[in-house]
Amino acid sequence: MIVLGIDIGGMSIKGGVIRDTGEVLDHFSVPMDKYADPKDSIGAMNRFIVEWLDTHSYDEEISGIGLGVPGILNKETGVVASSPNLPKWLDFNIKEFVENYTHLPVKIVNDASAAVLGEFHFGSGKNYKNFIMITLGTGVGGGIIINNELYDGKDGMGAQLGHALIEINGRQCTCGRKGCLEAYASATALIKETKKAMESHPDSLLHEVCNELGKVSARAPFIAERRGDAVGHQIIEDYVMYLSEGLLDICNIFRPDAIAISGGVANEGKPLIDRIIKYMSDRNYGYVGAPITEIKLPELGYDSGKIGAASLFFF
Amino acid sequence: MIVLGIDIGGMSIKGGVIRDTGEVLDHFSVPMDKYADPKDSIGAMNRFIVEWLDTHSYDEEISGIGLGVPGILNKETGVVASSPNLPKWLDFNIKEFVENYTHLPVKIVNDASAAVLGEFHFGSGKNYKNFIMITLGTGVGGGIIINNELYDGKDGMGAQLGHALIEINGRQCTCGRKGCLEAYASATALIKETKKAMESHPDSLLHEVCNELGKVSARAPFIAERRGDAVGHQIIEDYVMYLSEGLLDICNIFRPDAIAISGGVANEGKPLIDRIIKYMSDRNYGYVGAPITEIKLPELGYDSGKIGAASLFFF
Repeated sequence: MIVLGIDIGGMSIKGGVIRDTGEVLDHFSVPMDKYADPKDSIGAMNRFIVEWLDTHSYDEEISGIGLGVPGILNKETGVVASSPNLPKWLDFNIKEFVENYTHLPVKIVNDASAAVLGEFHFGSGKNYKNFIMITLGTGVGGGIIINNELYDGKDGMGAQLGHALIEINGRQCTCGRKGCLEAYASATALIKETKKAMESHPDSLLHEVCNELGKVSARAPFIAERRGDAVGHQIIEDYVMYLSEGLLDICNIFRPDAIAISGGVANEGKPLIDRIIKYMSDRNYGYVGAPITEIKLPELGYDSGKIGAASLFFF
Repeated sequence: MIVLGIDIGGMSIKGGVIRDTGEVLDHFSVPMDKYADPKDSIGAMNRFIVEWLDTHSYDEEISGIGLGVPGILNKETGVVASSPNLPKWLDFNIKEFVENYTHLPVKIVNDASAAVLGEFHFGSGKNYKNFIMITLGTGVGGGIIINNELYDGKDGMGAQLGHALIEINGRQCTCGRKGCLEAYASATALIKETKKAMESHPDSLLHEVCNELGKVSARAPFIAERRGDAVGHQIIEDYVMYLSEGLLDICNIFRPDAIAISGGVANEGKPLIDRIIKYMSDRNYGYVGAPITEIKLPELGYDSGKIGAASLFFF
């Protein structure tokens, strides 16, 4: 079977032609305007898809389109109730809208759930029964596999792992609450902390690094730390603490076999993972006999979302 | 079918003769010394059970014994690895120990999981597919039903909902971490806060109330508040805030159909539940369309654990 797997993000729509072995036969990308009416942005995606299908051929027919969508959505009806980072997406039936234009069957799932499905079926989660993936990006997303099945709560609206507390009445979160993990462990939070530190430390190497990068990015404090900058080091120490405490919560709540950490920040790779594991093992649930949860990097990189969205048709 | 359902607590072992309709035919109670070697305390329980069976008869034979056990345990092997409130329980095979003496088949489950199973099959969780129960007692326990099945993590060791953060580097928790929900929302925490408030407020009605009760109990601030005491009122306001924030976390993570709140503190009943619902509805996950989780009282009272433990044989 061959399916289009599509991962809708705030910056771009990333798609692929995916075989049911997990192989990606072709990649494509469509621009995304997160402030646009969804009929415009997804309308453009529809036209792109139909043109793609007209101009490409494979050894099998395309069986359908799987969509990973950020936001609160109902998998059955296909309606996206709302999306924190896509302000004009309100009660938008994306399933119907894409089916009517492309004449292909469409299945939808939350974007973080799409990512965990991809890794679970074809990547770092393959050997586990209880597997969780945390995505550190603009926000903090979470996907949950329990007993070999996706768990995404009532009507597919659950698993908002980024919106559990780290600190009561703490930093303001996009969701309206204060103190959620997202406000501490997202790339956005890391950028904010970096900007704050740059203001109060004009002598920090962060300025030089951000000049080189052309912007204040979440990579900056990691690079500055490697060059010996104390300010960058402190930002990352704090970041590791917040993220690891959030992961300890997930361990205590779910006691999963493994947690994979994805998203831009996870590109820091094994050195970051090792620091997280060290922090966590010093503070693992204190009782004798508590099992250890493995902390891993994803294996499919940026493709886990599109592969996972396609996998809605495979299993 | 008739089964012995037994809920092992730090203060006493509470049991019942339970029919597979959920009906409790008989209640019994055995003293428990939480500091004793489990071979002594559970040895005494074994002798009690055999004497009970010799002196009672029912219209059917007793088919087995279901045990709800506090601690980190392996349901398959029957070994309790450790138990935070039972310090001498280390690598104790309770299943074998009880089977060998009573010659009845034994099944074990974590005590919080036993309680949620009882309510799920026969009480306040009957109509829900995704149902969570929080028990506010010496600690804070959590039981999780997902897709109509108990979820208790790797080897049955998960679902430690009391050990997710409320406040990073906050109050010291029994588990070794700092800032867990248990350190804010347990009856123990409420008693500690009451004692602290009494020391700094010698004029508070709390002194009079605790005199009447004969001790500083978790009921004291509730009673003092009802009599118009500002100090008692503030303790309860804070308590509702901490507990409700913990429940909001559970809502965001699991998006369950309903959460039941049990344990001694839940005896405050509907007025407490209504305050929690008010706090939560003002701060529910901010996105449009997020579903509401019902907050409920349990229906089986102190029997949910024993009925749930017995239900291991029914389903």
